[in-house]
Amino acid sequence: MDIKSKIRVIEDFPEKGISFKDITTLIKDGEAFQEVVNRIVDDLKAREVDYIAGPEARGFLLGAAVAYALGIGFIPIRKPGKLPAETVKHEYELEYGNNTLEIHFDAIEKGKKVAIVDDLLATGGTVLSAVKLIESIGGEVVALEFLIELEFLKGRDKLSNYHTNSLVKYDR
Amino acid sequence: MDIKSKIRVIEDFPEKGISFKDITTLIKDGEAFQEVVNRIVDDLKAREVDYIAGPEARGFLLGAAVAYALGIGFIPIRKPGKLPAETVKHEYELEYGNNTLEIHFDAIEKGKKVAIVDDLLATGGTVLSAVKLIESIGGEVVALEFLIELEFLKGRDKLSNYHTNSLVKYDR
Repeated sequence: MDIKSKIRVIEDFPEKGISFKDITTLIKDGEAFQEVVNRIVDDLKAREVDYIAGPEARGFLLGAAVAYALGIGFIPIRKPGKLPAETVKHEYELEYGNNTLEIHFDAIEKGKKVAIVDDLLATGGTVLSAVKLIESIGGEVVALEFLIELEFLKGRDKLSNYHTNSLVKYDR
Repeated sequence: MDIKSKIRVIEDFPEKGISFKDITTLIKDGEAFQEVVNRIVDDLKAREVDYIAGPEARGFLLGAAVAYALGIGFIPIRKPGKLPAETVKHEYELEYGNNTLEIHFDAIEKGKKVAIVDDLLATGGTVLSAVKLIESIGGEVVALEFLIELEFLKGRDKLSNYHTNSLVKYDR
């Protein structure tokens, strides 16, 4: 299946000059959604992953389905004030603006293997923040899985210590 | 499986007097997460659902996994400014505060059958807003599925026109 053809590109969202990759058109296509989840699952099967983690909100869409398909748990990484128990925070720079993410302090037992799933690898800021949060509470990050990679932003250069997989690449 | 025992209750979050039901402890348990998704899937199987819809962000966790399990598409219902194409908006009152939700104008073809999946039925404001958005663009809502129902808030009273199913109930 040509997954890329299911993604809608919207120019100048959320800011002028940004060519936004809209995955809602893919996710609403049941076959395409299954294909994307199954391809990520295939890449993770041999890695003995204990948990899938994903940043809100689009990371929840793919990450939760991947966790379900693998029969393992999902760990949400959220914006400040959303997680009700004790958290660890990390602030970072985005492609446009700043962001802070949180994880529950007790989300992951020491040494457990975690794969991060998100829709988009752009500059890599979000996923590196997620990596730092997971490692700070004792998890081991064993894979980074993305639906889309914006290659021209060279986020992958920051992730060379981790197995990094993306399904669809864009050069603008 | 005793699903309720996997949910962590945190008092006085996000405000004093609110007994918050924390589902992160359930979702990180792979068996419990599968059980919850499969019970919702079982309730939907005979209903010939075309799409699952869910409000961000926790509605994405269960909803996307249910859509994947059924092999159908998922329609995100989001906070303002997140969806990149033309949207329809709806404003409503929450258990604490106000909220506005949006759906893509072209998300659902006329007459398609939609089940809404969310983690929580409280006053019913969020799900009724989601129902209105789906119906306003031509979708037919055939089921409302919740992990948790706060029975004392009587949200179900507002939903008598719809098949409504919840897996775990609380009386405070």
